[in-house]
Amino acid sequence: MGIVLGANQYGKAEVRLVHVDRSTPRHVLTDLNVSTHLRGAFDATYLTGDNAAVLATDTQKNTVYAFARKFGVGQPEDFAIRLAGHFVESQPQVSGAQIEIEQLPWARIDDHDHAFSRPGGERRTTTVTRDGDQLWVIAGLTDLVVLKSTGSEFHGFPRDEYTTLPETTDRILATSVTARWRYSSTHVAWGEIYPKIRAVLLETFAGTHSLALQQTLYAMGGAVLEQFGEVAEIRLSMPNKHHYLVDLEPFGLDNPNEVFLAGDRPYGLIEGQVLREGAPAAGPAWQFVPGFV
Amino acid sequence: MGIVLGANQYGKAEVRLVHVDRSTPRHVLTDLNVSTHLRGAFDATYLTGDNAAVLATDTQKNTVYAFARKFGVGQPEDFAIRLAGHFVESQPQVSGAQIEIEQLPWARIDDHDHAFSRPGGERRTTTVTRDGDQLWVIAGLTDLVVLKSTGSEFHGFPRDEYTTLPETTDRILATSVTARWRYSSTHVAWGEIYPKIRAVLLETFAGTHSLALQQTLYAMGGAVLEQFGEVAEIRLSMPNKHHYLVDLEPFGLDNPNEVFLAGDRPYGLIEGQVLREGAPAAGPAWQFVPGFV
Amino acid sequence: MGIVLGANQYGKAEVRLVHVDRSTPRHVLTDLNVSTHLRGAFDATYLTGDNAAVLATDTQKNTVYAFARKFGVGQPEDFAIRLAGHFVESQPQVSGAQIEIEQLPWARIDDHDHAFSRPGGERRTTTVTRDGDQLWVIAGLTDLVVLKSTGSEFHGFPRDEYTTLPETTDRILATSVTARWRYSSTHVAWGEIYPKIRAVLLETFAGTHSLALQQTLYAMGGAVLEQFGEVAEIRLSMPNKHHYLVDLEPFGLDNPNEVFLAGDRPYGLIEGQVLREGAPAAGPAWQFVPGFV
Amino acid sequence: MGIVLGANQYGKAEVRLVHVDRSTPRHVLTDLNVSTHLRGAFDATYLTGDNAAVLATDTQKNTVYAFARKFGVGQPEDFAIRLAGHFVESQPQVSGAQIEIEQLPWARIDDHDHAFSRPGGERRTTTVTRDGDQLWVIAGLTDLVVLKSTGSEFHGFPRDEYTTLPETTDRILATSVTARWRYSSTHVAWGEIYPKIRAVLLETFAGTHSLALQQTLYAMGGAVLEQFGEVAEIRLSMPNKHHYLVDLEPFGLDNPNEVFLAGDRPYGLIEGQVLREGAPAAGPAWQFVPGFV
Repeated sequence: MGIVLGANQYGKAEVRLVHVDRSTPRHVLTDLNVSTHLRGAFDATYLTGDNAAVLATDTQKNTVYAFARKFGVGQPEDFAIRLAGHFVESQPQVSGAQIEIEQLPWARIDDHDHAFSRPGGERRTTTVTRDGDQLWVIAGLTDLVVLKSTGSEFHGFPRDEYTTLPETTDRILATSVTARWRYSSTHVAWGEIYPKIRAVLLETFAGTHSLALQQTLYAMGGAVLEQFGEVAEIRLSMPNKHHYLVDLEPFGLDNPNEVFLAGDRPYGLIEGQVLREGAPAAGPAWQFVPGFV
Repeated sequence: MGIVLGANQYGKAEVRLVHVDRSTPRHVLTDLNVSTHLRGAFDATYLTGDNAAVLATDTQKNTVYAFARKFGVGQPEDFAIRLAGHFVESQPQVSGAQIEIEQLPWARIDDHDHAFSRPGGERRTTTVTRDGDQLWVIAGLTDLVVLKSTGSEFHGFPRDEYTTLPETTDRILATSVTARWRYSSTHVAWGEIYPKIRAVLLETFAGTHSLALQQTLYAMGGAVLEQFGEVAEIRLSMPNKHHYLVDLEPFGLDNPNEVFLAGDRPYGLIEGQVLREGAPAAGPAWQFVPGFV
Repeated sequence: MGIVLGANQYGKAEVRLVHVDRSTPRHVLTDLNVSTHLRGAFDATYLTGDNAAVLATDTQKNTVYAFARKFGVGQPEDFAIRLAGHFVESQPQVSGAQIEIEQLPWARIDDHDHAFSRPGGERRTTTVTRDGDQLWVIAGLTDLVVLKSTGSEFHGFPRDEYTTLPETTDRILATSVTARWRYSSTHVAWGEIYPKIRAVLLETFAGTHSLALQQTLYAMGGAVLEQFGEVAEIRLSMPNKHHYLVDLEPFGLDNPNEVFLAGDRPYGLIEGQVLREGAPAAGPAWQFVPGFV
Repeated sequence: MGIVLGANQYGKAEVRLVHVDRSTPRHVLTDLNVSTHLRGAFDATYLTGDNAAVLATDTQKNTVYAFARKFGVGQPEDFAIRLAGHFVESQPQVSGAQIEIEQLPWARIDDHDHAFSRPGGERRTTTVTRDGDQLWVIAGLTDLVVLKSTGSEFHGFPRDEYTTLPETTDRILATSVTARWRYSSTHVAWGEIYPKIRAVLLETFAGTHSLALQQTLYAMGGAVLEQFGEVAEIRLSMPNKHHYLVDLEPFGLDNPNEVFLAGDRPYGLIEGQVLREGAPAAGPAWQFVPGFV
């Protein structure tokens, strides 16, 4: 039985691009972490080291910086669409391209024209996939840490011989939301819809009386699909960041849900997809080459 | 058009288990980071918060620890197979389970019976997937950092308007190997074959005169398939950890491949799969729920 | 010549305490990472393993949680003062205690009563040192990332044979501020002054036309001392997070300070202290045991 | 009362230098992370932004790379001494320099001439301090993770109202050793003594029956001083990486020190110094500017 090359992709990961729009004294700052992945007729380099088809990853990086100057950056979705299109259209051996972008947020200091501070943690994300003439756009956010100090229960679960967890009608619910939603079209007002979807995710987390983190996840995803017809599906990955109630009885103290230990590991991990029936197919949008991303 | 729940999974991530086999004075230490993922008939908890089917992630954690005592740990593949089997067989609503294990290496200090030191970085990995009665075993390693100080070329690549990279016949080639290989059987001497496959990966990296990191990747994967009939396919993800030759000309110095700056970001990222023709199908082995792992 | 035990300290690091004040339906959330360090008559445990004097680090952790319930948390400075006092006053062998606290910020989601989101990155810090009857309070913040897209120059520096850096009258200035300021008194309205000092640091960074990061550092520190008589001294550590102007000439493009590469390593590191003349002495406030903190 | 500039230092942190000695076909690889800190007559830049005295941090970085080519690297202590000397001797305004180096270890793959793998974790460290004509050399290691699966007790500690920890005569003892030792001379065979001192630290950890981590720390430090007359003092920082015995009783299982949960936070933190009486003074060797390093 022969041995053959299977799925493959290559590109440049984590190109750190900071773009300053200085067209007015009120500078606009865009801070991106861009990764490119290409696929196509690259067998020769794997099999023999013949690089005639291999657009260097250094060239891909240069293209990111040059395009930022040539065309500006704008919304990360637009920037990614332009990059993906360029690689597929300019290089015949490239049949597909996937561009991933993380955007690091900056806020103005006291509404200053050119001074900014950067809240850490949460980032806006984009994954644009081009396969031949087809195009998919996924938007999202990651590391959005949220917590409810009440309004969360967990009970009614099965008890087998390894179950010791007590049932509770009041616990802390905390998670770090990673959400990615796929648009059904590539003509969306990316910059307008993003903060609205983010707001719906937050509101729904806050407003849902939770019987399980799964229920909260589905409520959040469902709310996005209900309110935004442009979204074909959404995927959420939500670690259950456990806050353990500390036993203070040995010290003669009660603990009416006041003092918690915030644990690091292990954590529950709840992942789910909410779909619109009849939505257009996802193709390779989620994973350009399954199992590698 | 309706809104529905799609693919989903849940479990307990990063259960840190250290097991000491004290059956003889020469202790055997096994240090694992175990993650469990279940899928099955869990719609009710997402849709209504009814947890009657939800084996708590806390219970899953307890099971990991209890099994370590009841059955010992042994090879991580065996431990993961046992855990996956338990969840599927003991809970009718659980149709599938995927167990991921990272093993942290320990070495004896001076061949001491119960004193150990832990080299950091590299970990052995296992992903066992059970779907109904079917079973897949993937083994692997991650963060194996390797470097060749010569014996690596890169030239002959296309030059478009954004290409500035000079061709080279002698560069440093460095990467951090993540390899995962799927066995065609579930009856393999896991503990014996693992160090042999690791050795072949290292030898092939060292012994291959490289014309492209892609070529090295394929050589490494191909060598494993050639020498180990038990392996159905292998996937490799290899960042190109760039070492930039420092320009010392401004200081009146040449730099004949002696002084390098080791860069952090960006990095090339080369990913590929090497397959045995006619190998058994992978099913959900690589990704229990595509797009989430 | 004999061999002797020198300076030493021990304690419990990174006790993760989340406190929910539920006294009204509008919950108040306090999220702390607490570390305790004790010193005193502990030679016996080092020399012979006699632990009669060693208040267990587990006990120190318990004390943190119990005190949160018994007395509430309030401002981190107050909480740290109480803990330091307890260890010194209740254990005769403990001559001194240093309590370090990092506070993780949380903000209400849509002004919700019990739902919060956590901006990452920046944390408020406190170091309280008790030595016998004496007490010092240091407050601060860390990882406050700020950037000016113009208003920063760097020129006039000496040029030796290893200097290649061009002079510039317009560059990006970015840093991650760690500031720690020592109060001259232990009776300060901690919760009121903290946001004011933070605001002055931000305003001064934004408002200073910078000729060197050193100049910006001194301006920031000086402004705090000028406006807050309670502050005896301030120390600032400010990495120069370099943003490199990308050379786009090979692509026929200019780059009028628009497109930058944000570098990871190396980074400049500027550190300085701004002092009030005649301020009370710092004693061991900065470092309980020099060289270890 | 006036406001004045106090202690200050500046430099370039984390210059990543990889040097390949290609003088024979058997390449020698040296992988360093170099940080430079200067102090001297730099008030003008802080106070007015006058940079006439400020040797740019970019120049400091260039010097690191140029010196690696000009003089080779050799032992990190020698390289650091040369760099510190250069800054102090070539720039009259520089009165002192502190050079910190981390060395990342590489091992040959199968004794190959130019192929290497890098065990992660542990690094060798050096801090060289030059103050005027005086010179101090500190060597060390960091992140050396070690564990004993038995041979560790902890009992006899005081029990106050917050103590719940049971006494134990058999526990896992695990730590991540950071050790730094100061040589009494600057003429030491750095490359020969380093592995010997490392071996003594490991042997002593392994061979000491431990009644407290403090006792183990002192034994390790004392053994180094006893066996190496060149060492004036040693400082050790050793987190107690707690391994919690899992309670398996709810599952009808005992747990005779076999199954442990490896905790992340909190951790005990034990720090101590072991000194040779009459050793030469340390000056600013441990901290060039106290409170900043």
